Amino acid sequence: MRILVTGFDPFGNETVNPAYEAVKLLPDNIAGAEIIKLEIPTVFGKCDPVVEQAIIDKKPDVVLSIGQAGGRFDISVERVAVNIADGRIPDNEGNQPIDQTIREGGENAYFASVPVKAIVEKIRARGIPSSVSYTAGSYVCNFIMYCVLHSIATKHPGIRAGFIHVPFMTSQAIGKPVNTPTMSIQTISDAIEAAIEAIVERSVDIRTAEGQIS
Amino acid sequence: MRILVTGFDPFGNETVNPAYEAVKLLPDNIAGAEIIKLEIPTVFGKCDPVVEQAIIDKKPDVVLSIGQAGGRFDISVERVAVNIADGRIPDNEGNQPIDQTIREGGENAYFASVPVKAIVEKIRARGIPSSVSYTAGSYVCNFIMYCVLHSIATKHPGIRAGFIHVPFMTSQAIGKPVNTPTMSIQTISDAIEAAIEAIVERSVDIRTAEGQIS
Amino acid sequence: MRILVTGFDPFGNETVNPAYEAVKLLPDNIAGAEIIKLEIPTVFGKCDPVVEQAIIDKKPDVVLSIGQAGGRFDISVERVAVNIADGRIPDNEGNQPIDQTIREGGENAYFASVPVKAIVEKIRARGIPSSVSYTAGSYVCNFIMYCVLHSIATKHPGIRAGFIHVPFMTSQAIGKPVNTPTMSIQTISDAIEAAIEAIVERSVDIRTAEGQIS
Amino acid sequence: MRILVTGFDPFGNETVNPAYEAVKLLPDNIAGAEIIKLEIPTVFGKCDPVVEQAIIDKKPDVVLSIGQAGGRFDISVERVAVNIADGRIPDNEGNQPIDQTIREGGENAYFASVPVKAIVEKIRARGIPSSVSYTAGSYVCNFIMYCVLHSIATKHPGIRAGFIHVPFMTSQAIGKPVNTPTMSIQTISDAIEAAIEAIVERSVDIRTAEGQIS
Repeated sequence: MRILVTGFDPFGNETVNPAYEAVKLLPDNIAGAEIIKLEIPTVFGKCDPVVEQAIIDKKPDVVLSIGQAGGRFDISVERVAVNIADGRIPDNEGNQPIDQTIREGGENAYFASVPVKAIVEKIRARGIPSSVSYTAGSYVCNFIMYCVLHSIATKHPGIRAGFIHVPFMTSQAIGKPVNTPTMSIQTISDAIEAAIEAIVERSVDIRTAEGQIS
Repeated sequence: MRILVTGFDPFGNETVNPAYEAVKLLPDNIAGAEIIKLEIPTVFGKCDPVVEQAIIDKKPDVVLSIGQAGGRFDISVERVAVNIADGRIPDNEGNQPIDQTIREGGENAYFASVPVKAIVEKIRARGIPSSVSYTAGSYVCNFIMYCVLHSIATKHPGIRAGFIHVPFMTSQAIGKPVNTPTMSIQTISDAIEAAIEAIVERSVDIRTAEGQIS
Repeated sequence: MRILVTGFDPFGNETVNPAYEAVKLLPDNIAGAEIIKLEIPTVFGKCDPVVEQAIIDKKPDVVLSIGQAGGRFDISVERVAVNIADGRIPDNEGNQPIDQTIREGGENAYFASVPVKAIVEKIRARGIPSSVSYTAGSYVCNFIMYCVLHSIATKHPGIRAGFIHVPFMTSQAIGKPVNTPTMSIQTISDAIEAAIEAIVERSVDIRTAEGQIS
Repeated sequence: MRILVTGFDPFGNETVNPAYEAVKLLPDNIAGAEIIKLEIPTVFGKCDPVVEQAIIDKKPDVVLSIGQAGGRFDISVERVAVNIADGRIPDNEGNQPIDQTIREGGENAYFASVPVKAIVEKIRARGIPSSVSYTAGSYVCNFIMYCVLHSIATKHPGIRAGFIHVPFMTSQAIGKPVNTPTMSIQTISDAIEAAIEAIVERSVDIRTAEGQIS
């Protein structure tokens, strides 16, 4: 089994992005699966061909993308990507799409095809707070999640994909308001490792009911 | 112009629901539009026929639904409803759907057809904090938003619909943790009134780009 | 009975201060007590002589000061004022004391002599969240609370005094981060009215045990 | 130089206390100072004789106490201890003092005699968020801080003392609301180590002005 794990480069006013920092700390093999790490640019229209090429080249079974969600407290596992690009701030090349459709003719939304609840439970079992999220926002994170799921739906049947949002890492709180939640980068990486373990263990599509979590 | 404004009855451990309390305070005519107020049950599968019947009986031009989002700080105007019902707690009749599809064959998601950004700006112009939200959750709020938009898409072309989430009202904070955000019920009602003014002023569908808000 | 109620003028980047805005809305008579309203400058060393003069001129039985605590969620009734002035930002005349003693020879701290717990319970009984706070900070709010209690301890035996911190009013959230807690100005004023009712009802000094509140 | 570092045992509904967990991870020597670790009971009237005996036996130059402040986001370095014991919940032996004076005839408050601002800056320089706090609450944390400073003021001149509050550790968030801030136990321990480095470097009493921090 081969899992492509992507993480964005730093954006906004940040000099670091916990997404790829955490990916870098992952072992190369998790629960028997080969881990392929890929840093991608925080740029609308540039991150998606990079992942597309990696899908073609590496033929992964799963694409798991990681992004920073500054202000969130826990590891949130995204269930939905929507066909809207709407940037509150410009991306790293100055693009700021407003009310744009990501893929003309694409579904209004795609659902993650990794087992989001099993992932949340596996992360919690490691002692790390986690929850299912129903929005990846409307910035580059939702964009890449949507693009990958659309690409799979239209061109790469059988690949599964998902997206995980992670909090600021501890050092990013310096200079921010006192009520800025953070997580250590090692904890974030441990959570992603747990997520991958859950994915390897479960081959079901999330569209099959998973059952309740608290 | 006729606007049907719905609000849920109390659920969970609450004895009051700021959604319908705020609707009750609305004037019967806003910016020339006739306001029809409807309290609906917080029950999967029971709130939707109630709204459907009101659509048939009252022939509104717009359906605006209001729900409580305990824990949110501002008036959040929902942009997306997804085809998933997944209850963290049972509804008022003990139903707790898990990973359920709301409408077989329905779109994965529908987008609000009221001008969400114009609404946010109008509310802010009243001095009330507001923002666009990309998730109405997976409980009864998302359910009714999805059901109404699906019904309109399949049976009632031309009607527009949207959903607004409101914080706890002030008195609901008593007995809750000290960091529970609230809003006065009059402020919530004023915000809904402003939202309706924006809807009356704008006849465009949100799928037409609205432009950026900060 | 005569109660002097003070409120600061706007400071920092704010154009309004909910403290004095709420005081202005108070009736002139509460539970039989005459209410004397006084706006005071957010300036170290200038607010205290203004209150001192009012104490001499008006001979109040109680001095209740109100201040803005942006970021707090509820009405917090202060129990302690400390002999430290330490400004994170300059006051309205550019003073920014650092690690300064407010009154040489004064106590390290004074305790409020209004019944803080009875006040909290009275405010809650109005349906408004409230709690006892053990810090008024180290800015002008703590400064005036300390100055008044020191003045009473050394020069005006028998007068009782306290301080109440209030959240941002609703409109102050515009332009701030989405997780900014607020309260309507009418709710804030109602809470202060309830506080005064509690003060009138209770003549005991807080140093006498009040008993537990949840 | 010898530094006594105390940490409480678990209390409330928690099975672990990050305070002593972090202390256990400290090296035995920091910046040339010998570190003496002491777990103390979360019990009014029992933690203080334990620390008192350790002061007599070990003759430390500094007593630094660590406690859990669930709900806080950063490492908060306490500046003030007040002569009030008032428990919102019972301690580990069921004591719940209400409005009690800790030491009859003691000062209303004592100020930390470790350099609180230098400590905050040293912790931040490690990439860990930290701030000065003006309240250690009214539970066992404030109690031990007050007792130690009172004991030093009356019986052990020359010893310096302080108190640091730490957030929940990561695993404590499991089962709590999603907006529960946490810190990894290694990060908490690193912060305490940095605090001790600051204490060793600075021999001044905090009552001497330290200057401004942002």
